[in-house]
Amino acid sequence: MLPAEIIKKKRNKQALTQEEIEFFIFSYTRGEIPDYQMSALLMAIYFNGMTNDETVALTRTMLNSGITVDTSAIPGFKVDKHSTGGVGDKTSLILGPVVAAAGVPVPMISGRGLGHTGGTLDKLESIPGFNTQQSLERFVELTKKLGTCFIGQTKEICPADKKIYALRDVTATVESLPLICASIMSKKMAEGIDGLVLDVKFGSGAFMKDATKAKELALALMNIAKSYNKKIVSLLTSMDQPLGRFAGNALEVFECVEIMKNKKFIAPNGKDLYEDTRELSLQLSAHMIHISGKTKSFEEAYKLAEEVLVSGAALKVFEKMCVEQSGNLAGLKLAQQKTEVHADKDGFVSEFNVEKIGLAGILLRAGRRVTTDVIHPTSGIEFHLKLGDAAKKGDVLYTIHGDEPELFNSAKEMLKDSYLISSQKPTTHALIKEVVHI
Amino acid sequence: MLPAEIIKKKRNKQALTQEEIEFFIFSYTRGEIPDYQMSALLMAIYFNGMTNDETVALTRTMLNSGITVDTSAIPGFKVDKHSTGGVGDKTSLILGPVVAAAGVPVPMISGRGLGHTGGTLDKLESIPGFNTQQSLERFVELTKKLGTCFIGQTKEICPADKKIYALRDVTATVESLPLICASIMSKKMAEGIDGLVLDVKFGSGAFMKDATKAKELALALMNIAKSYNKKIVSLLTSMDQPLGRFAGNALEVFECVEIMKNKKFIAPNGKDLYEDTRELSLQLSAHMIHISGKTKSFEEAYKLAEEVLVSGAALKVFEKMCVEQSGNLAGLKLAQQKTEVHADKDGFVSEFNVEKIGLAGILLRAGRRVTTDVIHPTSGIEFHLKLGDAAKKGDVLYTIHGDEPELFNSAKEMLKDSYLISSQKPTTHALIKEVVHI
Repeated sequence: MLPAEIIKKKRNKQALTQEEIEFFIFSYTRGEIPDYQMSALLMAIYFNGMTNDETVALTRTMLNSGITVDTSAIPGFKVDKHSTGGVGDKTSLILGPVVAAAGVPVPMISGRGLGHTGGTLDKLESIPGFNTQQSLERFVELTKKLGTCFIGQTKEICPADKKIYALRDVTATVESLPLICASIMSKKMAEGIDGLVLDVKFGSGAFMKDATKAKELALALMNIAKSYNKKIVSLLTSMDQPLGRFAGNALEVFECVEIMKNKKFIAPNGKDLYEDTRELSLQLSAHMIHISGKTKSFEEAYKLAEEVLVSGAALKVFEKMCVEQSGNLAGLKLAQQKTEVHADKDGFVSEFNVEKIGLAGILLRAGRRVTTDVIHPTSGIEFHLKLGDAAKKGDVLYTIHGDEPELFNSAKEMLKDSYLISSQKPTTHALIKEVVHI
Repeated sequence: MLPAEIIKKKRNKQALTQEEIEFFIFSYTRGEIPDYQMSALLMAIYFNGMTNDETVALTRTMLNSGITVDTSAIPGFKVDKHSTGGVGDKTSLILGPVVAAAGVPVPMISGRGLGHTGGTLDKLESIPGFNTQQSLERFVELTKKLGTCFIGQTKEICPADKKIYALRDVTATVESLPLICASIMSKKMAEGIDGLVLDVKFGSGAFMKDATKAKELALALMNIAKSYNKKIVSLLTSMDQPLGRFAGNALEVFECVEIMKNKKFIAPNGKDLYEDTRELSLQLSAHMIHISGKTKSFEEAYKLAEEVLVSGAALKVFEKMCVEQSGNLAGLKLAQQKTEVHADKDGFVSEFNVEKIGLAGILLRAGRRVTTDVIHPTSGIEFHLKLGDAAKKGDVLYTIHGDEPELFNSAKEMLKDSYLISSQKPTTHALIKEVVHI
C-alpha cells in the first residue's frame, strides 16, 4: 500500500478499508509515514468526511495503537462521562464522587483545556500537590479502593491519537466530525469501561453551535460505542451561558466542594448560582448510575445520586481521592485581587457570547491558547446574573478574579463585549434539551 | 501571521491575501514553515481552489522565490512554448530550432518526464554527452549565439516551486488547477521571455480528458501571463492518440531529426507517419513567430517556419546546439531488439487509451513512475496505425523497441489493452481543435 494512493482515495471521496486505515495510522505512529502525508490525509478527511464504518475502523485503530486498561480487578459495571466542553463546565468533579459513592466505579482519564473550554486535569491541579500523573496500575487500584480516580492520558493509551491530535492542532484539521469522534472514543474505550454518558453541548460556548449539529455528533459518538457493545446515553445540554457561578480552575474546585457540602449561593435576586452545576451533575450522575443497572428506573438513580450528594458521602470520596493523589484540598488558594464588570443598561440579560467569556479566561491565563501555555490556577471569572435575569445599569455582571491585575484590563474589555441586555425578557433554553438513546 | 490561521482561512474557502501567500511560501521555502503545514494548505487549495488574484499572487511569489533570467543581452522578442504533456509529444525539439532559424530567439528551460508523459530533457539526454545542466550565463550566451538553447531548471529558478512540487507528488495534491498554473507559469516567467505559446492537450493521454477542461486550464494560464504583460496564445490539441511515429527518448530525437531532414515515413497504407509531428511543430512555430511581431500575418509566419524547416536551416541550429551542449548527435543509439503487437481483428482503429500506452513506456523504462527512476534512453514504442485507419487482423499496430527484452512482455500486455478496433470508421478529432486568444 502506498501512502499517497490512500490519500488520493480519500481525496476522491472513496471510503478507505480497515486495512488501509490500519496501515496508514500504524505506520504514522511508528514514524514510517511522515507528518506531511498525515496532514494531507487529515485535510482530505476534513473535506470528504468518513462513513460510519471508516470512523469505527479509525477509532479501533487509534485504540489499538496502545493498550486498553485492564479494569477486571474492579468489580461491577464501570462507567464514565465525557463532555464536549464548555465554560464553567465542572460536573466531572462532582459526578465522579457521586456515582462512586452510589456504588458504581468511575475510572476517569481526562484531558487538559485548550482554547476557550477548560479541562478537568487543570482544575484538579489547582489543588496544591494534586498529582494527575498516576500509573495505570495505581489508577486501577485507586478506582477499586475509592470508587473513582482522575488521571491524565498516559503514553500507553492511544499514542496514535496523541500524535495525530498535535498535528491537527497546527494544520486546521481539528473541526472534523469523524476525527473528533475517533479521538474522543478511542480514549474513552481505552479506559476499560462498560458504559458512557455523553454531555454534548450546543450554543455559543460549544463546539457545535446548534442542537441539530450537537445531536449529529452525539449519534456519531454513540454509533462507535455501540460497535464496542458499550451502553451509552447522550444529553444535549445548553452552553448558551457559562455553567454555575465560576469559570477558572481553583474557583471551579471551590464551587464543586461547596455543592458537595450541600451549600447554596443565593444571589441578590434570590437565585442559587450553584443550581445549574448541581442539577446537571445530578442528572449526568443519575444516567451513569442507571445504565450501570444499579437501579431499575432513572428516577431511582436520580434519588440515589441526590442522597449521596446531600449526605456528604460524595464529598468524602472526593476528599479521599485528593489525599490518595497527594492533593491538599484544605490548602486550595483563591485569588487575592478582583475587579468588576457592570451592566451597561437596564433590562434583561438576553444573550451571552460564551466563547468570548472563555477567551477572556485565556487572557487571564485561566485557559490555554496553545498547548504550551502555562495556566494560572487562581484566575477566573465569577458570574452574577443568568440569562433572563433582570439587570439594572451598574449591577455587577462579572467579577474578575486573579493575582495578576495587569491582565484584568484586556479581559474586562473582552467581557464588556460578551453580553446583551435588552428590554424584552428572552426565551431561554432548558439546561437539558434532549436525552438521546440508541 | 500564524500558518495554521492561513490554512484555516483557505479551508473555510476564503481568499488569501498576497501578503498571506508570500508569508506562507517564503517561510516554507526558508524552512520556517514545516512540510506538514504546507501539505495541509495544498490539500485545502485542492478542495477550495483559488481566485484568479490568488493564483496570480501565488505565481508571483513562487517566481520571486528565485531569480528571473536576465535575457537583455539577447536582442529582440524572446518566445517559448509550453506543452501540458502527452505521449510522443516531441515538438519542442523541432520548433526551438525552427523559430530560432526564423530569427526569433527561444530560451527554453524544460522539465523531465513523470508519469505517462515524456520530458524534453530526457529526450535530449539520449544524445550521447548532451549536457542540459548549463549555467544561466551560458544559457543566455548560447541562446544569443544560436537562437535557442535547451536547459533544465537550475536551483536559482523558482526554488519554492521545486520544494512544493516534490511535496505535491507525495501528498496527492498534483491535480489542482491553481497549483498547476502557478507551477508552470512561475517557471516560464522566470525565463525572461516576452511571449509564450501554450499547447494544452486534451484526450485520453492528457491531464485534461476533455476540451472544455483544457480550455479552462488554458485560460487560467493565459490570465497569469497577461498579468505580466506577456503575449500569449494557446492551442487546444488532441491527445487521443500518440503524436507521430515514436514514443521513447532516442526514438523521438531520431524522428525529429528525420523531420528536420525533410524526410517522410510512408506507412503501407500510404500515410506519412511523421506528418502530425511535423504539422503541429510548424503550427506552434508559426504562432511563436507571429506573436513576436516578425511577420504581419500568421500565414506568413507559417510559410517562414516551413521554409527554414525544408531548407535545413532548422536542422543546422539543432546540430550546432548539440555541439555547443557537448552532444554527439551522430552517435545517437537506437535499440537493438524489438517485438510486435498485432491487431486482434479486422476493422478500423477507433480508440487509443493513450495513458496506457504511456504506462507501457514506463514498463519499458522509457519513462518514470517516480522521480528517482532511471530512464533507459533506447526503449520506446513505434506506432504503425492512426485513428480511423483500416486494420486487418495480424497487422502490426505497435513495435516495441528496447535493449532489455525481459521488459517486453509486460509492456506488450499493456499495449494489447490500449486500443479498440471496431467495424465502424470513427469520427476523429482534428489535431488542433481551437486557437485561444485573450
